[in-house]
Amino acid sequence: MKFMTFKWKDAEKYGVANDEKSSVWDIESLSRDSNIPCPQSLIDGIAEDSMFLSKISKLIEWGKENNSENYLIPFAEISWLAPIPSLRKNIMCVGKNYRDHAIEMGSEADIPEHVMVFTKAPTSVIGHNEYVDAHQEITSELDYEGELALVIGKKGKNISQQHALDHVFGYTILNDITARDLQQRHKQFFIGKSLDASCPIGPWIVSKEDIGNPNYLQITTKVNGEIRQNSNTEHFIFPIEEVISVLSQGMTLEPGDIIATGTPAGVGKGFKPPRFLKPGDEVEIEVEGIGILNNIVK
Amino acid sequence: MKFMTFKWKDAEKYGVANDEKSSVWDIESLSRDSNIPCPQSLIDGIAEDSMFLSKISKLIEWGKENNSENYLIPFAEISWLAPIPSLRKNIMCVGKNYRDHAIEMGSEADIPEHVMVFTKAPTSVIGHNEYVDAHQEITSELDYEGELALVIGKKGKNISQQHALDHVFGYTILNDITARDLQQRHKQFFIGKSLDASCPIGPWIVSKEDIGNPNYLQITTKVNGEIRQNSNTEHFIFPIEEVISVLSQGMTLEPGDIIATGTPAGVGKGFKPPRFLKPGDEVEIEVEGIGILNNIVK
Repeated sequence: MKFMTFKWKDAEKYGVANDEKSSVWDIESLSRDSNIPCPQSLIDGIAEDSMFLSKISKLIEWGKENNSENYLIPFAEISWLAPIPSLRKNIMCVGKNYRDHAIEMGSEADIPEHVMVFTKAPTSVIGHNEYVDAHQEITSELDYEGELALVIGKKGKNISQQHALDHVFGYTILNDITARDLQQRHKQFFIGKSLDASCPIGPWIVSKEDIGNPNYLQITTKVNGEIRQNSNTEHFIFPIEEVISVLSQGMTLEPGDIIATGTPAGVGKGFKPPRFLKPGDEVEIEVEGIGILNNIVK
Repeated sequence: MKFMTFKWKDAEKYGVANDEKSSVWDIESLSRDSNIPCPQSLIDGIAEDSMFLSKISKLIEWGKENNSENYLIPFAEISWLAPIPSLRKNIMCVGKNYRDHAIEMGSEADIPEHVMVFTKAPTSVIGHNEYVDAHQEITSELDYEGELALVIGKKGKNISQQHALDHVFGYTILNDITARDLQQRHKQFFIGKSLDASCPIGPWIVSKEDIGNPNYLQITTKVNGEIRQNSNTEHFIFPIEEVISVLSQGMTLEPGDIIATGTPAGVGKGFKPPRFLKPGDEVEIEVEGIGILNNIVK
């Protein structure tokens, strides 16, 4: 299932995408009319884990039998939001998790021996089709980073690699937009990674049941239609199980936590000369089995 | 005014300390009995900024005239919580903001030229008198860092140094407990700084009106009664106005955001040989005009 959050007639709603019909099941209306209770926001649903999926299945089944057209809102009528618009903590991001990207950012010496994690502020989050802010007054080196991101479902601490995927609710796409000049100037990455509207996430969260092996997904980033990044998550230095296990040693992971898994080679800074983003540029990130996250720089 | 959050008879409440009587005004009861409406949590109050302070003043005035003993809960009966127990984003921390600490962590070369910021996970937060977790299974280098922290009141972006303090609600004390081995191993500081129960905050937030110049406050850290850190915020490399201004360039600061301002020399790692924390150690941090934050390592 593809879980999304969106605005429709000024109300924030969440729903499940119906791709074939380019529309989304309106969970709130379904729940009201069917008298099947359902969480009020996606993050509350995620916290219910597998119980949530079975509630949603029932709702959609009910909808199909009861004039589905009343409960399907066409994509054309909505504004997309990030799947979890109000996070409860920063997004956790793995740095340099593809060998070829580590090298393009410096040299072989930049390939990490241990998982490296920095964070992006919740205020940086935007959804599919929302505008990335160019921030031209403070950066001249705005860069894209296409990434697979995972969403934690089940709370946990000291999680073994063996049980790591049990704690995942699903997967989404994340563009870890970075001001390279700020990233370098301020040493720790937080400042250069946390500008407002510098973290597109979406278009939806695909529940893990619909994704095969998350460590074997094609990932492609295009800028204005030109392929810049083209790789596969099989090239992770630290696969998802290891990232979850390392992060959870001594630190509790909670439902709704988002972990971005790192970006492959082909970022703007990796080109000679560098090819940074400018207003009007369109960035499309495609991850196999999830879809396409599209954003334009304002 | 000293704003605190605490547990009493299994309910989470916030209130204003009455030091002389070693007790705390119970805002919820005052509001109910006086019919003066008041926000339900401290973070909601902080978002109301100066309006909040005037409501609270009225409540306490009303309490003093109406059997104050009914509305004062003795400190002896409460469990302390962090002033804002449920944060909405990570704590932002300035790294190496005192010259002597930068040098003890390496050399003169470690003195930063620009503000350096990393974050701590909200799951790391505990209150005054709560136990710090030793995490002996994953670190053998647990260290203390006594710091002045500020709490944002008024939302803002691209804030000038001149107007920076207008955005502060108040000040508190923060112990930036750090696993030095993890901090070093994982390069970016987040992992080594985010273990559960590694971020004591409190005992309360003192509203800015009661603090003179925040860049001129004595700060002292004792471990088992022995003075380890003894400095003054006048030694900040980047004063509070500059920290707020730099952080807010392109990034919106929000009510309830916590910014830790860095630690002076005297951390455990700075000693030869290093003097890391062990179970049973008691860490007391005193900041002039605020009070004492006390925590024991479990």
